[in-house]
Amino acid sequence: MKEKLTIIKVGGKIVEEETTLNRLLADFSVIEGYKLLVHGGGRSATKLAVQLGIESKMVNGRRITDAETLKVVTMVYGGLVNKNIVAGLQAKGVNAIGLTGADMDVIRSVKRPVKDVDYGFVGDVEKVNAGFLSTLIRQGIVPVMAPLTHDGKGSMLNTNADTIAGETAKALASLFDVTLVYCFEKKGVLRDENDDDSVIPVITPDDFKELVAKGVIQGGMIPKLENSFAAIDAGVEQVIITLASSINGENGTVIKK
Amino acid sequence: MKEKLTIIKVGGKIVEEETTLNRLLADFSVIEGYKLLVHGGGRSATKLAVQLGIESKMVNGRRITDAETLKVVTMVYGGLVNKNIVAGLQAKGVNAIGLTGADMDVIRSVKRPVKDVDYGFVGDVEKVNAGFLSTLIRQGIVPVMAPLTHDGKGSMLNTNADTIAGETAKALASLFDVTLVYCFEKKGVLRDENDDDSVIPVITPDDFKELVAKGVIQGGMIPKLENSFAAIDAGVEQVIITLASSINGENGTVIKK
Repeated sequence: MKEKLTIIKVGGKIVEEETTLNRLLADFSVIEGYKLLVHGGGRSATKLAVQLGIESKMVNGRRITDAETLKVVTMVYGGLVNKNIVAGLQAKGVNAIGLTGADMDVIRSVKRPVKDVDYGFVGDVEKVNAGFLSTLIRQGIVPVMAPLTHDGKGSMLNTNADTIAGETAKALASLFDVTLVYCFEKKGVLRDENDDDSVIPVITPDDFKELVAKGVIQGGMIPKLENSFAAIDAGVEQVIITLASSINGENGTVIKK
Repeated sequence: MKEKLTIIKVGGKIVEEETTLNRLLADFSVIEGYKLLVHGGGRSATKLAVQLGIESKMVNGRRITDAETLKVVTMVYGGLVNKNIVAGLQAKGVNAIGLTGADMDVIRSVKRPVKDVDYGFVGDVEKVNAGFLSTLIRQGIVPVMAPLTHDGKGSMLNTNADTIAGETAKALASLFDVTLVYCFEKKGVLRDENDDDSVIPVITPDDFKELVAKGVIQGGMIPKLENSFAAIDAGVEQVIITLASSINGENGTVIKK
């Protein structure tokens, strides 16, 4: 039987504010068994960019990453946010290690081809090195992954944190019994966006089709759920969409076959 | 017989300019056997601080690190400079991993006690985790260490890169046959500071005393050599002081018993 691995993805907002970060670190540190954290950091990147007079351009919720913006996200995601989390986890006795995709060649990506939009130094994941990651994990080390990859030609690339979490979960699914938890600002996928307590407890592929057809699930939640089903199809045991404060609990929406 | 490990320390200037960085990466990548790189990044930190309107205060060549400056060095050393080097080495087939002291608790330090000067968030090295480092190294992974440590209580600390290199060399000396190379802007320790070719090929402790007494060695070179002899006393095989472009060569000044 495969051992359990919990992969938690938290957005920028949670890790960038001291109160929510401390709560997350406390909750994450008591998760039993193997675990891995993927974090964002977009708000801090935007803040630093503003301070440096660099304009943040977003298209479809994704950051256009020119050479100067790449420096900003490398500093913020790989340096400030990542090391703050790692030092915070060490203080709680969790033997964390901060990783970008370049470190140990853990995630290699290709610079996104220019079609309608030139996203600049943005990477689409090509390969996750499950071998190195699992070697670390089995030593009791907890990877803390920044939303950065590399192209194998010397350049870092900016990569969406949801994608890092999903691709890592898929790559590790043959080695571990993986639960992937996407944390966001709501308790789960809501039946009524104006009612925070209207969490849909379980969504299967059939439910999903029906909920989309009825217009209950819409907008940015659609790609999140599509990614979740793709992870399930690739062998991930379950995907949970919930609040960061519920990563240990029984709340949230469970996505399953 | 212990296997050979080469530890190279390079200053900020070398890793912050594209031409010298590329040269360094090429030279470093062809070093045979186990290796480890320690880098600085002070010039980039100062540059970012200026852009952010943060004053850089230096005392005895050391940066006073207040909370805002700690953020700057964490971004620059742990993010920008470190990941640039790691991605650059990966492109040359070197399986590099970027580390601060917080990652895998590799270097724990204590915040420097306030005496005449309050250095702020500056860490004096307490413990280097030789076990984790050697496990990585023996897997063929090449640590690239930023001049940052942590206090075990959740805070990163700014730590001098020469010190990181020296303490890491000492800690690994019982496990490997360690050569420690300090790269700087001169070919080696010079007999005449105005003659770049007046490199002193070998310095023993007796030579050192004599050269200091005669005033040949003075200023910042004195603590550098004292640290070198301390490393030798702690079991490091040899210390070499040379140009970054000579890390593979036979040039420079060899410090030995």
